[in-house]
Amino acid sequence: MAIGEAHFPIIPAIPGIRLGVSHAGVKAGSNKEDLLVIELCEGASLAGVFTDNAFCAAPVSICRAHLSAGGAPRFLVVNSGNANACTGSQGYDAALQICQSLGASAGLTAQSVLPFSTGVIGQALPVQKIQAALPRALADLSANNWQRAAKAIMTTDTRPKGRVTELTLSGGKVTIAGIAKGSGMIKPNMATMLAYVATDAAVDQAVLQNICQQSARDSFNRITVDGDTSTNDAYILMASGQSTAAAITSDSGSDYQKFNAAVAELAKQLAKDMLRDAEGATKLVTVTVKGGASAADCFKVANAVCHSPLVKTALFASDPNWGRIVAAIGYAGVEGLVASSVRVYLNDLLVLENGQCASTYTEPLGQAVFNKAEFAIVIDLAMGSCGETLWTTDLSHEYIKINAEYRS
Amino acid sequence: MAIGEAHFPIIPAIPGIRLGVSHAGVKAGSNKEDLLVIELCEGASLAGVFTDNAFCAAPVSICRAHLSAGGAPRFLVVNSGNANACTGSQGYDAALQICQSLGASAGLTAQSVLPFSTGVIGQALPVQKIQAALPRALADLSANNWQRAAKAIMTTDTRPKGRVTELTLSGGKVTIAGIAKGSGMIKPNMATMLAYVATDAAVDQAVLQNICQQSARDSFNRITVDGDTSTNDAYILMASGQSTAAAITSDSGSDYQKFNAAVAELAKQLAKDMLRDAEGATKLVTVTVKGGASAADCFKVANAVCHSPLVKTALFASDPNWGRIVAAIGYAGVEGLVASSVRVYLNDLLVLENGQCASTYTEPLGQAVFNKAEFAIVIDLAMGSCGETLWTTDLSHEYIKINAEYRS
Repeated sequence: MAIGEAHFPIIPAIPGIRLGVSHAGVKAGSNKEDLLVIELCEGASLAGVFTDNAFCAAPVSICRAHLSAGGAPRFLVVNSGNANACTGSQGYDAALQICQSLGASAGLTAQSVLPFSTGVIGQALPVQKIQAALPRALADLSANNWQRAAKAIMTTDTRPKGRVTELTLSGGKVTIAGIAKGSGMIKPNMATMLAYVATDAAVDQAVLQNICQQSARDSFNRITVDGDTSTNDAYILMASGQSTAAAITSDSGSDYQKFNAAVAELAKQLAKDMLRDAEGATKLVTVTVKGGASAADCFKVANAVCHSPLVKTALFASDPNWGRIVAAIGYAGVEGLVASSVRVYLNDLLVLENGQCASTYTEPLGQAVFNKAEFAIVIDLAMGSCGETLWTTDLSHEYIKINAEYRS
Repeated sequence: MAIGEAHFPIIPAIPGIRLGVSHAGVKAGSNKEDLLVIELCEGASLAGVFTDNAFCAAPVSICRAHLSAGGAPRFLVVNSGNANACTGSQGYDAALQICQSLGASAGLTAQSVLPFSTGVIGQALPVQKIQAALPRALADLSANNWQRAAKAIMTTDTRPKGRVTELTLSGGKVTIAGIAKGSGMIKPNMATMLAYVATDAAVDQAVLQNICQQSARDSFNRITVDGDTSTNDAYILMASGQSTAAAITSDSGSDYQKFNAAVAELAKQLAKDMLRDAEGATKLVTVTVKGGASAADCFKVANAVCHSPLVKTALFASDPNWGRIVAAIGYAGVEGLVASSVRVYLNDLLVLENGQCASTYTEPLGQAVFNKAEFAIVIDLAMGSCGETLWTTDLSHEYIKINAEYRS
């Protein structure tokens, strides 16, 4: 089950970035390709955002350590099927061994490698299987493996997710392409999600990190499926610098703006693609809160609506039971909220004003909106001029089935 | 679907408290008794705790107004089938008309009546149907109607909920009895729940309010089904003063302590009864967090575990996927948490220590605990000496079915 048609774009080669895939058999009995290696050319810059879960997985700790050491990563290695989380010091050693093996095969240190894992928590990572599969992934390295790479990192995802865009900057054209995985344990502030976005633009590392964080804030950190932040999330932004366009720095003016906006838009598209493929989802709903006294207030309200199981089951049933939306606004904890001033819309259909159902609202009009696979809930708090937008899905029988049977 | 055997106790007459029930037909097509009137004798004291939802329903606003006016309520009137919430000024007038009708029939003002509603949000309350059914409820008044009363206030509940206890104080015996409804839209800080607890003890109003609030804190405000706080919640504690026992004041010493503890325990039992009958629930799980630097930290962690849909679907599947519990602890937002110091237990089975699965843990041992209908998750943060306990349920297919089809 997923929303809309599956579509993986044709992603052209991005000079300086190669991807290799192989089968390691991390999850016993699975014959899917489950190992991905991404190679960055010398001189590439890289930025990342990681989960803030206190029980972050071993690979996340290692990524942070390798990045803070200041070295330039030359390889990313990702396995699906096992999260290598809650695995203690053995898990840390396991991830490090994989970095060492991969680094050594290219004459590099372990610090040149960033490891990533996604899958079941609390089980030992099968290091030897992954080590055995590394040479095949390296032999497979190619600039044209984006779709196979997107498939290799999938867990409960039902479709690979990829996006690409091109833009013209001073001195030449640049391409930005990305893949992502994630369909459960998703909520604001990262989730069981991995996203890898690459460009041939030349971007100063500090600028790239800034762009990475900004784009995460308005995309991956604004979506929710079930409110669970995972132990393994990572979003990596890589710039090979092999385009002819001028290097982007904080002084690049309109080039900076264009590039920043393009990355933000691509990240948002990938984030929404995750929700379209969210576990059991049949609806993708945009929740926009405006008229807030602060962005934090707007976030609270959007968050309450996005997480309410009662709202989410009503979405699944295509039942315009708007009272549940209003109840969620009411318990979001906005100080000074005047219930009679709040307006609620389904797309542009006014549902609530003066603390009651709008006189122009009818059930068939509400039903017509709820019948759509994608629509917006718009809430005007009438307290100021701030706003926030989050995206959520419905809560379906299929979600329960997937998550009750995940390990069986 | 509900947990354990249904059991409604024999509740003896509580002198000074009478209950009457009738059929008003609030929800079209339903022939259940849906109207309850509770009569308090002259001189009774009453305390209440209400929802903090900003969109609180009209009857909640009226209860607050009537109580703050300082009059002594003599009647409670409760309808199920319609929440009279998000109904604006018409809803307020509707609830007030019912208070006026009931008050007038006993020669009292509207202010002597407290109204309560539970059911669908956003639909006009059928005032005339309720007014027509009031005389039949008044004619039905009896001290022995507790079970019928508990049934009359049910919505998606599958069984009436009642508890009773007796204790001996200086000068005589007192009885405390209560009924409650609520099985969805339940979370800490009140929910779509109504609870009415009565005693023949004589209790000073200010003391009664204090006992009411304390007992709500550790019972109704510590349970969650789906994290949704409703617009209509209320917990009312009534004391008729007709027992021979000495009046309870803040100076009553051991009598105060005994009575306070008994009310707290009864409220906790009613709260857990709600979870045993929670929508689609097959498990009642106690989440105890200890070793916290503050109670607030412990609450955050317990709350995260109790609300995680991934934990709740694992509970439903009887799958000891403890990594989901650990992930929820990790994203709860406790500052300074040292992941490697945290211990997690299932009942008294150690699952996690040193950031990984305990060496003594085995899957069959974990499975044996998860197979139980009621068990505890115990989390030791190893940061201090504070603690908190919350109760939660699993998330099942049946929950989705009930809440997707609620209005159909």
